[in-house]
This record gives sequence, C-alpha cells and structure tokens, in this order.
Amino acid sequence: MVRMAGLRERKKEQTRQRIAAVAWQMFTERGFDAVSVNEIAEAAEVAKATLFAYFPSKESLALHGVGGDDLAGIVARRPAGQTFLEPLRAHHRALAAGEVPEGELEALLARVRVIQDSPTLQHAANAQLYHQREALAQVLADEYGPTAAALMAAQIAASLLTLQETYFRHLQSGASALEAHRALAQDVELAFDLLGHGLDQAEGR
Amino acid sequence: MVRMAGLRERKKEQTRQRIAAVAWQMFTERGFDAVSVNEIAEAAEVAKATLFAYFPSKESLALHGVGGDDLAGIVARRPAGQTFLEPLRAHHRALAAGEVPEGELEALLARVRVIQDSPTLQHAANAQLYHQREALAQVLADEYGPTAAALMAAQIAASLLTLQETYFRHLQSGASALEAHRALAQDVELAFDLLGHGLDQAEGR
Repeated sequence: MVRMAGLRERKKEQTRQRIAAVAWQMFTERGFDAVSVNEIAEAAEVAKATLFAYFPSKESLALHGVGGDDLAGIVARRPAGQTFLEPLRAHHRALAAGEVPEGELEALLARVRVIQDSPTLQHAANAQLYHQREALAQVLADEYGPTAAALMAAQIAASLLTLQETYFRHLQSGASALEAHRALAQDVELAFDLLGHGLDQAEGR
Repeated sequence: MVRMAGLRERKKEQTRQRIAAVAWQMFTERGFDAVSVNEIAEAAEVAKATLFAYFPSKESLALHGVGGDDLAGIVARRPAGQTFLEPLRAHHRALAAGEVPEGELEALLARVRVIQDSPTLQHAANAQLYHQREALAQVLADEYGPTAAALMAAQIAASLLTLQETYFRHLQSGASALEAHRALAQDVELAFDLLGHGLDQAEGR
C-alpha cells in the first residue's frame, strides 16, 4: 500500500510538472494574458477540471515554483535554540548553492520576462509575497507581539525580494549562471547579516 | 517682487488644495474609478489643462499627501556625523507627533477605504513606494555599494509601510485618533530600533 501511494504521488507530480511545462512554453511564446486555461488543458492533454485540481488558477500555474517558499513553516519547525533567522539563512544559502544549469538559463529568463510583462502576474506575485509575509508574522507574533512581528516579517520579505530582483538583474545584464549564483551566494550572507545585526552596524556604530 | 512671488505661490497652493479636496469628496462618494478627470475639473471650476498642470494624473491627485515622503532627500541632506537612520527616525517621530484632529478622522478613514478599494490606486501607491525605495537606494549606493544599499532601502521602505498599515488598522478597528497616534509614536521607535540594531538583538543575542 505504501509503495502504491508512493507511485500515485510520483505520477501526480509528473502530471503537475507536465502541465506547468506546457503552460510555460505557451506563456513565453505568446505572453501570459493571451493564453487561455482551455488551450493549456488541451495542449497538456488533460481535462480542464484536472488542470484546476492541480492549479487553482492560471496565476498559480504561472507562479508554480517561483518564490513560494514556506517561510513561516521554516521558522516554526526550527530546532530549539536557533534564532529565527538561522533556518531562513540556511534555506536561502542552499537555494543559492543549487545552480541553474547554463542550458536552462534562457528558459528562466523567458519566465522572468513573462512575469515582468504581465500586470496580472505582478499582482499575483505581490499577493503571494503578502501571504508569505503575513504567515511569517503570525508565527513570530506569539514571541514578539503583533507589531514587532509584522515589522520583522516585512524586513525579511523585502530583503528576500531584493535578493531575487538583484539576481535576475545580474542575469538580464549578461552574467553567466555561474557568476549570478556566486553573486547571489554572497548577497544572501550580506542580506542576513544586515537583518541580524542591523543597519547601524553597517555604518560601523 | 519677492512678495509677489510669495503671493503667487500661496495662490497656487490654495488652488492645488481646492482641487484635491473637491476630488476627494467625489472619490469618497462614488469610488475612485467612477469619477472622471473632466468631472473633477468642472466641480473645482478649473480647466482640465490647469488640473493637469497641478497633478499629472488622476492617480497622483488621489495620492496627494499620502506617504510620498522624500526619503532620499531626507537622508541626502542630513548633517555630517548623523547615521542615515537618524534623520528618517526624526522625520517619522515628528509625523507621529502631529495628531489628526478627531473631526478629520472620518475623512481620513474614507480616504483609506477608497485607496484599498481601487486596484488602480493600490498599484499607483506601490509604484510610488517603489520609486521612493529606488531613490533612497541610489543615495546610499555610493557609501555601501548597490546591493547593500538596495537591501537597506528595501528594509526601510517595508518598515514604513508596515507602520502605516498598523496605524490604519488601529483606526479601522475603532481606536480614537489619540490612541492611534500614541501607538504610532511607540511603533516608530520600535521600527527604527529593529532597523538599527537588527533582529538578532530583538532575540537577545
């Protein structure tokens, strides 16, 4: 039974990946807004209802795998004795270490362009970030009170978004995948140092 | 000549205020998207071209006086020997001290509702915040390098937005103007302490 459940999970994940891949090819060719969910379902050879079982909306399909990290969960599940920044730093350090193969760079940049070109997707990405921030604030609120928690979560979310923007800007201005990832690895440390020690420290006070 | 220039400036400011007041009455009655620039110009008894000389767009008219602080200028003009957070803290401390008269609370809350109800205005407010953040990063970049500057500006902008959200949430949940301002004054200090000393310090490390 366990093995069958595992098989079923793997098949599900394959279907999810196939739908996302087909959709992304259509989005990069024609832009997000010009592609309908019907067309995606048809091209991926699934029923529309099946598609919606995997992705509740066209936006969620487009943002699949883009910055949707469970920040609140990472903090909530940290071992006793760790500050809440430590597991977040470790998570982003690992992301920066996992390089994008040079051959997949074009596809990644095309994806970034599709998101940047669609106000609908920009809005959805902002909403996603807002929910991540709110969930993180909720986890921190017990310990620090609601306002301090909201401020902390806002600082963290803003820093992570800046890391992402800086990374994509590097790639778009012609850096290789390797160069961009090396810079990202350094920037992750810089971001978490600033978050941890504060801006006065950066000024040497 | 100096006195005439002063008079002209005062008249201009009065016209600007009158246009904004008329527009806001119409926005709160009917919502931002339902009111046209033509209607505002007519109600304010100015030509449409005059209106556009004061406000380049309907969005800028609606956001007049809402969180458009010149953060970059405040930092750039600080006296030698101050950290860049000091003048920003002083500025927001002063804003928190300047109370909203209880009689104007209804109008303020109506304004907040209009902005929250209009995706167009939300988008314009985000764009405004984005430009403030970029300008601040540019001022800090000479001293700290572009990435550290971008991270610092992002942390600051996110904290200020959180202060504003918390303040409006207090008012919307029934706090008096006095209570909301007292809380804001405390929250400003908390926000700048977190920015200055970092989140590890908040954890007592």
